[in-house]
Amino acid sequence: MNENRFSYHSLVRFTQSIFEKIGCPQAQASTAAKALLSADLRGVDSHGVARLSGYVRLWEVGRVNSSPTISILRESPSTAVVDGDSGLGLVIAPYAMQLAIQKASTAGTGWVAVQNSNHFGIAAAHAMMALGHDMIGIALTNASPLVAPTFSTERLLGTNPICVAIPAGEEPPFVADLATTTAANGKLEILQRKNLDAPEGWIQDKNGNPSTNPHELKNGGALLPLGGDRDHGSHKGYALGAIVDILSAVLSGANYGPWVPPFPAFMAMPEEMPGKGIGHFFGAMRIDAFRDASEFKRHMDQWIHRFRSATTVTGFEQVLIPGDPERQMEADRLQHGIELLPVVVNDLKSLAVKFDVELS
Amino acid sequence: MNENRFSYHSLVRFTQSIFEKIGCPQAQASTAAKALLSADLRGVDSHGVARLSGYVRLWEVGRVNSSPTISILRESPSTAVVDGDSGLGLVIAPYAMQLAIQKASTAGTGWVAVQNSNHFGIAAAHAMMALGHDMIGIALTNASPLVAPTFSTERLLGTNPICVAIPAGEEPPFVADLATTTAANGKLEILQRKNLDAPEGWIQDKNGNPSTNPHELKNGGALLPLGGDRDHGSHKGYALGAIVDILSAVLSGANYGPWVPPFPAFMAMPEEMPGKGIGHFFGAMRIDAFRDASEFKRHMDQWIHRFRSATTVTGFEQVLIPGDPERQMEADRLQHGIELLPVVVNDLKSLAVKFDVELS
Repeated sequence: MNENRFSYHSLVRFTQSIFEKIGCPQAQASTAAKALLSADLRGVDSHGVARLSGYVRLWEVGRVNSSPTISILRESPSTAVVDGDSGLGLVIAPYAMQLAIQKASTAGTGWVAVQNSNHFGIAAAHAMMALGHDMIGIALTNASPLVAPTFSTERLLGTNPICVAIPAGEEPPFVADLATTTAANGKLEILQRKNLDAPEGWIQDKNGNPSTNPHELKNGGALLPLGGDRDHGSHKGYALGAIVDILSAVLSGANYGPWVPPFPAFMAMPEEMPGKGIGHFFGAMRIDAFRDASEFKRHMDQWIHRFRSATTVTGFEQVLIPGDPERQMEADRLQHGIELLPVVVNDLKSLAVKFDVELS
Repeated sequence: MNENRFSYHSLVRFTQSIFEKIGCPQAQASTAAKALLSADLRGVDSHGVARLSGYVRLWEVGRVNSSPTISILRESPSTAVVDGDSGLGLVIAPYAMQLAIQKASTAGTGWVAVQNSNHFGIAAAHAMMALGHDMIGIALTNASPLVAPTFSTERLLGTNPICVAIPAGEEPPFVADLATTTAANGKLEILQRKNLDAPEGWIQDKNGNPSTNPHELKNGGALLPLGGDRDHGSHKGYALGAIVDILSAVLSGANYGPWVPPFPAFMAMPEEMPGKGIGHFFGAMRIDAFRDASEFKRHMDQWIHRFRSATTVTGFEQVLIPGDPERQMEADRLQHGIELLPVVVNDLKSLAVKFDVELS
């Protein structure tokens, strides 16, 4: 292995140790490490271990509570609202998803809104917890404002992802995990690093003009909602991002819209915040509350098979099922390790020195 | 009023009479007429009374049962599966949404999947039923295949809409109702009629090449998922349409993907259909199962106010809240009547003669 390539297990171990060093109880540190690294495994490099030092800095400035007392503020047979006590979203989200699964096991479905949390990594890490229970899993979160609604020059929404994970039988599960923007911020960061133009429809400049310059985001520009512009349905992407924001935060009592706290610890908190922390929303639906699970899975297999065997446009090998690329990436990285960018490795090395933890 | 303009109430009366003439019980005919006309009121002309003769033709060929016995196949505290007995979706959907609302009143949320149904008009008509109960309403449906998944030349999905209706306090409700395609089929039909080009990203030809010719759809082409192409996130629109298809049909036991029955009665039914009829999925979430409804609505008002007052891109007056244009259209059409296309008026006149019902 080259010096920037690490095994999944060593990165989980390292991450867990760092989380323990900042005060996380061991079980929570382990949960958080696995949730964070699931991003690297699935190829969402922007949301994985590259952010570890960011989480640590949030703890350093007192914006992450490393040993939260997570509590249930309100509940009904199929719902709950959870207060995350400013903990790591990586810990609070699995707790809330587990609660949704538990509700679903008795009420048929479970729906948990979360306030007072922080960033939770990738949505798929949490939604996929439902799969082993023969349930459909759903995970939404709001995030710091980077996205301009249609006709707006202001950034009022995060990239607010939607993940839906659906079990199948012989086939691997259907796992759609999508930012409600044309392109995720991570893709833009890659273009920024390489100084390459972005396709049209990804970003606008600070006055709302279409732009292909990936650096405009730092000059007051914004990411665009899925669709890109009004002619191509950006009002739909905006509506989807808004739904995620409202379910995650207005329903839970978290901050919404432009008041969602920023991830970088050096950025000031918004003024006059209307809620607590970042908000999430989780759902679990027990398949056999609707239909025999075996019958459902047989039809999911048929669904998947039919789509995967569709005639393709010349030049493309196969119609993909949501979750296919991430699953292939995961298999590859479990076997061959995860290659990190040099800048990320340096970041981890600094953490290793600072907290006296071995990185190997 | 000119000869093509009718009052909302006279169109509801006429539609109800036609539904009664084909055998609908009076209460069901009334429900169906209001559901159908809500499309015309909200400006979704393609899904309203323009389709009345299409529903009648489905009844004529025996594909719509005008006096269905709607039954519950399975239920849990928060879920149910409904068999629509091949009835009008315009009747079955309100029944199922009412059931979801009833479940939510005791379990916190209610989720109802429907099999053996037909087209239900616009999703908003059903999702908005939740608003008066201080609940969030959700309505999804699959539809006849017109949309090619990313990389596919085959049409495997319908325009599969998502509607989410969320109550506010002083402000009108947030109502997002969106086809999971770049553009709804109705918009394409307008371009076809006027022989105008479509923007790029709306359609592809039969080989999967990008096209701006709106007639390509009749030559084996397809509508494109929201995003348009892979660079602009079409895999996300495809995933959203797929989620709608799976929740509506694989979960309920309806037909999915390319097997969804066509709306035009002259088109043959697909072979080897894996389920029954068309599928829908409805949800209702009681606000106070999460948070005091008054508090929620106060924050929704703040959310809406903040977005509506955002700084706009030069040339645009205001950032819109989902549901704004439809609500303005509804107010206008209630007051000034609904102007129909001559071809639609002729269609209604034929129905009037055929069924001996007065159109005024």
